Amino acid sequence: MTGPMTDARRYLELDGPFHMMHGSLPAVTLAYETWGELSAARDNAVLLFTGLSPSAHAASSPRDPSTGWWEDMVGPDKPIDTDRFFVVCVNSLGSCFGSTGPASVNPETGEPYRLDFPVLCLEDIAHAGQAVLEALGVERLYAVVGASMGGMTALAFAMLYPSTATGLLSISSACRSLPFSIAIRSLQREMIRSDPAWLGGRYAPEAPPAQGMRLARKLGMISYRSAVEWAARFGRERATDDLGDHEPFGIDFEVESYLAAHAAKFVGSFDANCYLYLSRAMDLFDACDHGGSLEAGLGRVQAERALVIGVETDFLFPLQQQEELAEGLRASVGEVNFKALPSVQGHDSFLVDMDRFRPAVAQFFR
Amino acid sequence: MTGPMTDARRYLELDGPFHMMHGSLPAVTLAYETWGELSAARDNAVLLFTGLSPSAHAASSPRDPSTGWWEDMVGPDKPIDTDRFFVVCVNSLGSCFGSTGPASVNPETGEPYRLDFPVLCLEDIAHAGQAVLEALGVERLYAVVGASMGGMTALAFAMLYPSTATGLLSISSACRSLPFSIAIRSLQREMIRSDPAWLGGRYAPEAPPAQGMRLARKLGMISYRSAVEWAARFGRERATDDLGDHEPFGIDFEVESYLAAHAAKFVGSFDANCYLYLSRAMDLFDACDHGGSLEAGLGRVQAERALVIGVETDFLFPLQQQEELAEGLRASVGEVNFKALPSVQGHDSFLVDMDRFRPAVAQFFR
Repeated sequence: MTGPMTDARRYLELDGPFHMMHGSLPAVTLAYETWGELSAARDNAVLLFTGLSPSAHAASSPRDPSTGWWEDMVGPDKPIDTDRFFVVCVNSLGSCFGSTGPASVNPETGEPYRLDFPVLCLEDIAHAGQAVLEALGVERLYAVVGASMGGMTALAFAMLYPSTATGLLSISSACRSLPFSIAIRSLQREMIRSDPAWLGGRYAPEAPPAQGMRLARKLGMISYRSAVEWAARFGRERATDDLGDHEPFGIDFEVESYLAAHAAKFVGSFDANCYLYLSRAMDLFDACDHGGSLEAGLGRVQAERALVIGVETDFLFPLQQQEELAEGLRASVGEVNFKALPSVQGHDSFLVDMDRFRPAVAQFFR
Repeated sequence: MTGPMTDARRYLELDGPFHMMHGSLPAVTLAYETWGELSAARDNAVLLFTGLSPSAHAASSPRDPSTGWWEDMVGPDKPIDTDRFFVVCVNSLGSCFGSTGPASVNPETGEPYRLDFPVLCLEDIAHAGQAVLEALGVERLYAVVGASMGGMTALAFAMLYPSTATGLLSISSACRSLPFSIAIRSLQREMIRSDPAWLGGRYAPEAPPAQGMRLARKLGMISYRSAVEWAARFGRERATDDLGDHEPFGIDFEVESYLAAHAAKFVGSFDANCYLYLSRAMDLFDACDHGGSLEAGLGRVQAERALVIGVETDFLFPLQQQEELAEGLRASVGEVNFKALPSVQGHDSFLVDMDRFRPAVAQFFR
C-alpha cells in the first residue's frame, strides 16, 4: 500500500453549515498537515497559522519531502522540535491550497463561490483551526503560533479559545492594522480589481488577472522588505546599460528584475479572489472588537506564557505594534516576553533571517 | 491693453536643436514665472526647481492670484522674500504645464512626441533652467533651490554650473535614488503602462489611462506621507459600516477615501507619458555620473553656502541621504548646514508642515 507520496495534506470535511462572522458556508473542507506525535498526555500540540499566502506545508516530512515555507523552524531538532511537539498547520479558510475558499465550488450551485463567498474574517480562520484540533482530539495547546496575518489569527484564536491556548507566540503581527498598512493592501486589491481580466471576480482559472496579481505582488515585496536591505543588496546595479532600445519604461535596475522574478513566481500560484478576501480580512481584524476595547480584547487571552517578536526594520507591522501587543497581554498572561530583532529584511525577516529567528523561537519551546 | 490676467507664465522659445543627455529636440518652449525684481547688481536671483508634478506657479502674484504650490514660502515678507529676491520658477522640461514634454507637438511631425521624446534626465531640466536664466540676464544666483526631484535637479544644476550657483538649498532630496525608491517609482510606471488605455503611449488627450494614473497617485501618496501621521489622522475610522453591499472590495476605511480623493484630483491634471519620463529621470539621476564618484561629483559644486534639510519620517528620501549629501558637499562648499526636522508628514512635509519649514528656509535667506 505504499507508493510515491508527494502530498502530506490531510483533509477535514465539515458537513452542515459552517457559521462565519458574516454569513455561513454549506460545507467546509480544511487542509492541514501534521508533524510529530500527540503525546499520551495530549499536552504537546502546537497550532501554526500561516501568513496570507503560504499553504499548510510548513516543513518537509517523509510523506512530502519538498521544502516547506518554514523549513528551518519546524522539524526534528529544529526550534519547533517535532520530536517533542505535535505540530499542526492549517491552510487558512479562504485560501486556495486545499481549504474551502472563494475558488472552491459551492455545492449548492456547482459553481465556484467567487464573490459569493461571505466576507472573511480572521476569526473565521481561527474557528476553522479549532475544528481541526477537535478532529485531532487536541483540547489544549502548548502554543498557538503565527507570523504576520498568522500572528493576528493566533491572537484571534487565543481570544476566542482562551482555555485551549496555553501559550501564544506572535511574530511581526499586530492587534489591528494601521491605516498605512490598510492603504497598501487596499491598493493591492485595487490593482487586481483594475485588471480587465478580473471580470468582477468571474475569471476562469486558466485566465486569471495576471497583471493585477503581478502588480499586487510587487507592492507586497516592497512592503515586506526594507530600504536598508535593498541598498546593501542591489545598490544602483543596472540590469541593462541600454536606456533606449528595450521595452519602453521596462527594467533598468537590478531591483526591478528582482521584483519581476518574485511576481512571476506568485502569479498563477495564488488565486486572485482568495487574495482579495484574505487581504481584506487583515484590514478588518481588530482585537478591540472582542469586548469593546484593546484592554478588554487582549484581557480575554488567558495563556500562561506569551512571546511577542518584532523586527526593527518592519514598516508594515512596525515594532510599536509588537510593543502594544506585548504590553496589552501583560494584564492577563502569566509571563510575557517581548523581543525586538535588528534584522534588516523588514517584515519578511521571519522567513529569511533564520540565524536571528531560530534562537528567538527556540527559547520559547525549550 | 490690460484685461483679466489669469496666467502669470512667461515663455522662452528656443529655436534650433536643444541637446539632451540622450538625444535632442528640434525646438523647446520653457514656461516659467518670476516674482520680484532683478537688482541692479544682478545678485539677488533665486532659481526654483519643482518636484515631479507642480507647475511653475509656485506662488500667487497680481498677474495670477491663484494659490501657488509653495504659497507660504514665496512672496513679500515670506521666507523667500520677493521684496528682496528675484525668484524664477521653471516648469520642468518634460512636464506638461507649458514647457516642452512628451505631450507637446513635435514640429517635425505635427504629432505629439509621446514615446519619441528622448530619454529625459534631470541634467536636461537643469540645462533648460540655465537657458531661462540666460534669457533673463542672470549670471549668478543667490541660490538654486529645490525639494524632492527639484532638489536633485538643483544639485545637478550646481554641478553643471558651479560658478552660477552661489548658494544651494536642497530639501528632502538625494545624490541618487535608493533601490527602494526606484522600486516604488518603477511600480507606479508599470501601473500606468498596464492600463489598457495607455495604448503604448498613444492615448488621446481626452482618453488618458485614468485608472493607471489613479493607482500610481495612490502609491505616490503612500510613499509621500507617513504611517505615524495617518495613525493619528485616520486611525481605524470607517468610511462605511456596511461590509457587504457596497462595491466589492471597495472602500471600508477613511484612509481609503482620502487616497481616492487625492487620486481623483490628480487624474486628468497630469499627462501620463510626462509622468513616466519625469519619474524615470529621478531613478536615472546619479551625482556619481559627474566625475566617476560621489566625491568627484559633489566636488564640482562650488557654492559658498549650502543648506540641506531632511525630515525624520521621510522614507522615500530618508534622512541618511540628506546627511550623505551634506557631508559630501563639505569638501568643496564654504559653509554647509544640515537640518533634520521632526515633521510627521514624511516626504511631503515641505508642502504641509510650514510651521517647521518656514523658519528653516528663512534662515538661509536672511
